[in-house]
Amino acid sequence: MTLVVFSGELDKALATFNIANAAAAMGMEVTMFFTFWGLNVVRKNRGLSKPKDFMRRMLGWMNPGGAATLKLSKLNMMGIGTRMMKGLMKQERMPSLQELISMAAAQGVHFIACTTSINMMGLTEEDFIPEVKEFAGAAAFLGEARQGHVNLFI
Amino acid sequence: MTLVVFSGELDKALATFNIANAAAAMGMEVTMFFTFWGLNVVRKNRGLSKPKDFMRRMLGWMNPGGAATLKLSKLNMMGIGTRMMKGLMKQERMPSLQELISMAAAQGVHFIACTTSINMMGLTEEDFIPEVKEFAGAAAFLGEARQGHVNLFI
Amino acid sequence: MTLVVFSGELDKALATFNIANAAAAMGMEVTMFFTFWGLNVVRKNRGLSKPKDFMRRMLGWMNPGGAATLKLSKLNMMGIGTRMMKGLMKQERMPSLQELISMAAAQGVHFIACTTSINMMGLTEEDFIPEVKEFAGAAAFLGEARQGHVNLFI
Repeated sequence: MTLVVFSGELDKALATFNIANAAAAMGMEVTMFFTFWGLNVVRKNRGLSKPKDFMRRMLGWMNPGGAATLKLSKLNMMGIGTRMMKGLMKQERMPSLQELISMAAAQGVHFIACTTSINMMGLTEEDFIPEVKEFAGAAAFLGEARQGHVNLFI
Repeated sequence: MTLVVFSGELDKALATFNIANAAAAMGMEVTMFFTFWGLNVVRKNRGLSKPKDFMRRMLGWMNPGGAATLKLSKLNMMGIGTRMMKGLMKQERMPSLQELISMAAAQGVHFIACTTSINMMGLTEEDFIPEVKEFAGAAAFLGEARQGHVNLFI
Repeated sequence: MTLVVFSGELDKALATFNIANAAAAMGMEVTMFFTFWGLNVVRKNRGLSKPKDFMRRMLGWMNPGGAATLKLSKLNMMGIGTRMMKGLMKQERMPSLQELISMAAAQGVHFIACTTSINMMGLTEEDFIPEVKEFAGAAAFLGEARQGHVNLFI
């Protein structure tokens, strides 16, 4: 299975990692390709790199990364809805996004971060969590997807 | 074919059911897996269950369900755009979302509602329209998707 | 490969055409099915058709088409974010969306525009760029998708 993670929203990231973990538990080989806003899901929680140019610094400031900073795609309400959802998940003893990411990595899910997006956003490889093992472009994703049974764009 | 219905927006729901109905008419076996906001598409139009805790009652109030309550993902404009779109569809004698759902069920499209999301949102099986025949997790979806020719995340 | 282009946002369109071009360069046959807001990606930059009825004229005014008019799905900030992203892409010598569309057409990527959406929005075949070679419904897409190895909904 391959999953293109384009979106950087908490709800979509939760759904994606739930699917990835279930698939890995069923013995499927899973590759996740993080691109565009989806890069935020696997960025470190505090931006380390300091882009030199003004536009990228602005972009970094408006678009912080890290699983802990993601918001709901709906009902965010300046953070209240997102905090509420996290509260409900804790109450149900559901794993947090960070825990789901660690579980996926432990199960051998392969994480690729898209180099084209990384360049555009002025990020570097140091900005990503250690679970990201490969940095490559769309061709790397397509090489996996051609052999995949299930390929989803999220 | 399997369709993961993550989004609870009118336009995406219309596209999804158009694809599902066309596929069923061509003789394909179709499974739809409703998760997260997508649950709203197959909820009854008036919430029946009364969650006990405050947070879920708030969530139910802000996130009403039912095909009739869905809004456009774009140009909603406090409901004006959504009503306009429904007007245009009626004028073109296109079936409404509710009619598309009934058609899909009549053609044997299989509806699964995601139990993980249901628990998180404090819903119960009674909150769903009778066309939903199965309540299950991501593994049930993956079991179908592995055998599918076409699998889409919407 | 088949790609359903449902969204009419600049970032998603860029990702889609990057994937399409990479796939075509690898020798894959690619079909793109433009539907709903995705029609805006392959509309001419200035609407030509003048719908007769009031609602469609309103819709055309609020929902202009053409690759040059698309906005980011996030951080648009009344156009500032979108212009910034285009600036960053130029700086990195990345091709613009219009160039990616021409490249895809030159590589033989097949463009289908969804007739159901076209009717609903009161558009005509003259509203589309010449790269769109086919106007058809969901069944045409499914015919291709059934034979596809990779099928994505964007």
